[in-house]
Amino acid sequence: MRFLHTADWHIGKKLHGFDLAEEQIDAFEQVKKIALQQKVDAVVIAGDLYDRSLPSELAVEQLNQMIIELNLKLKKPILAISGNHDSATRLNTGHEWFKATQYYLSTNLVEALQPIEFEDTQFFLLPYFQPYQARNLFEDPTLVEVNTALKRIIKEMKMKFNPLKKHILVAHFFVAGSSKTDSETKIEVGGLNAVPAELLCDFDYVALGHLHNKDALKEEKIKYSGSLLKFSASEANLKKGVWIVDTDPFKCTFIPLIPLRDVVVLTNSYQELISPKTAKQIPRETYVAIKLTDKAIIPDVMNSLRNYYPRIISLERAYGREDNDAEKEDVNLNLDPMELLTNFFHEITDEELSSEQKKWAAESLGTLEKEADL
Amino acid sequence: MRFLHTADWHIGKKLHGFDLAEEQIDAFEQVKKIALQQKVDAVVIAGDLYDRSLPSELAVEQLNQMIIELNLKLKKPILAISGNHDSATRLNTGHEWFKATQYYLSTNLVEALQPIEFEDTQFFLLPYFQPYQARNLFEDPTLVEVNTALKRIIKEMKMKFNPLKKHILVAHFFVAGSSKTDSETKIEVGGLNAVPAELLCDFDYVALGHLHNKDALKEEKIKYSGSLLKFSASEANLKKGVWIVDTDPFKCTFIPLIPLRDVVVLTNSYQELISPKTAKQIPRETYVAIKLTDKAIIPDVMNSLRNYYPRIISLERAYGREDNDAEKEDVNLNLDPMELLTNFFHEITDEELSSEQKKWAAESLGTLEKEADL
Repeated sequence: MRFLHTADWHIGKKLHGFDLAEEQIDAFEQVKKIALQQKVDAVVIAGDLYDRSLPSELAVEQLNQMIIELNLKLKKPILAISGNHDSATRLNTGHEWFKATQYYLSTNLVEALQPIEFEDTQFFLLPYFQPYQARNLFEDPTLVEVNTALKRIIKEMKMKFNPLKKHILVAHFFVAGSSKTDSETKIEVGGLNAVPAELLCDFDYVALGHLHNKDALKEEKIKYSGSLLKFSASEANLKKGVWIVDTDPFKCTFIPLIPLRDVVVLTNSYQELISPKTAKQIPRETYVAIKLTDKAIIPDVMNSLRNYYPRIISLERAYGREDNDAEKEDVNLNLDPMELLTNFFHEITDEELSSEQKKWAAESLGTLEKEADL
Repeated sequence: MRFLHTADWHIGKKLHGFDLAEEQIDAFEQVKKIALQQKVDAVVIAGDLYDRSLPSELAVEQLNQMIIELNLKLKKPILAISGNHDSATRLNTGHEWFKATQYYLSTNLVEALQPIEFEDTQFFLLPYFQPYQARNLFEDPTLVEVNTALKRIIKEMKMKFNPLKKHILVAHFFVAGSSKTDSETKIEVGGLNAVPAELLCDFDYVALGHLHNKDALKEEKIKYSGSLLKFSASEANLKKGVWIVDTDPFKCTFIPLIPLRDVVVLTNSYQELISPKTAKQIPRETYVAIKLTDKAIIPDVMNSLRNYYPRIISLERAYGREDNDAEKEDVNLNLDPMELLTNFFHEITDEELSSEQKKWAAESLGTLEKEADL
């Protein structure tokens, strides 16, 4: 069979205060067209349908409408899971009715173990989960890390494998060795929660969500689809789109989307940026991350640049600024939460975290991050 | 046909900080049993399924489960509308799939005009609405008040009347002349939004939600079901339950529920209240609103009363307290928002609101109250 693999729609997301609703709808329309042109038998959405566990009414209406169009109007089966940004409970509303039209939505581990059967393919829909859910389900207190929990889950799935069919896993986690961007929530706290790719080798294809870069992982049959839109300046150079996957014979083709409004990084001097020649090259609607090469103080620089680039999403100095006082380094927030905590613990106690403390910390951080929907 | 009429479930509601989830589930179980025993052909829920437009995950799970049990497990058709406490958009999620199992949920005016057809009965499901929605739908700028808007809506409904069937309206508003309790949101701002009962005379029965007292209105065929639980001390003496309605020949029977934990008002002296004889008469789990007849200062009165009555929901002095300083009258918050605004305007400007200003104020307050979900 042939299916379309997408993920990380993040409906409701704002880009530095700019509402992305128009961009989201435009990208969705392109996905719809691709699904039709490519005559796919199903659409896989590998988590993070919403940007937050408490989506706005507008976001709810928008996602509801998209699912209605894809599933009820175009009659495309949908295979979806909840991601770390979704509230599994809220997303699950109506779930019992959805199967009737082949909208398969999985938000808990019990459902993950039951394959969705197509003529020649079995889909296992594994939502974003915490190890404690596996501990509870299997009544096994040793399932403390994502790895061991996943191993157990996959063992269970394999017992349901029909050898005459292909086996596809849809999941939402961080696979060890993947490269990251700035716009993903770090769920692989302290590295304990990264999944080794070897664990996934029994599937004919693994359709992943979570990372926003389609090339985050260099595996032939384990792929992130990436997001439909660029969600940060760090994604400016990424190609966004969807995978079209043929299961037999296996083939995986990337189909790019054309952004309604692109995200670009401009590294240049103030004088160059406000010259008509430079400014004209960038459509006014483009989201612009500016790295100023000047070191001098420029009065009211943000407002004057906005005259040329109305959608500035960030303004930095490529080489710092002359008044060094303003350059004081703050806590490095790019460290993952576990590193921050480890450093803080060391600063305060002058001791290192024990391995048991590390385990506790990792678990608590995992729970906190899920709850805070960071 | 025979149907059960209920409303104002307010799933997720707390009673002065006490979670009512257990009471809600218990009441629902009783409703289920009544639906089975009475062999009803459908269950009508006339709005305010949730207590707030942004229900907690727990509330979402609870209501989802109730609908699943009633509709999918017991196979009872459900006829439901959104009330002023519900987010129409959020409640609507999955709506397009629900019809397949006869779960009819109406959250907007367009749906209200399409009757739900049973063999011998037509149901019109009119959700809580604001006049602007009618103005937009009918492109008629004169529909400024609820009355005129409703008149127009009913005119439209009557064009769909099948003369061979009975006609039932399910709605959520304040009918003029109804008596109120303290736990309902005042949506009839300034009296402009009260609906005269005469407007509803063309229906064989009007199943209302909004007021929590089943006897709020003295009409044979226009009834509030009241809430399933007592939501304030002012409801302590009300009987809670559901109506069983036979359409032909018309008959309307009230079936009371037995509260898991009752709400009572105790008017008594401190010494009497802490006497074992008095305290023993009240089950410890009961929600108690206390009106102390003492006027003397009693140190730590709340905490010592809690030893006997752990679920105190309010503590007042029936006749005031000796230290009159503490009795200073605050703004009377029992006035409706329009009266408060009118008084405030007069205090500040020494003038009265013009009729046009009143109209604007009423409209703005209506919008605000809906948004703030007071």
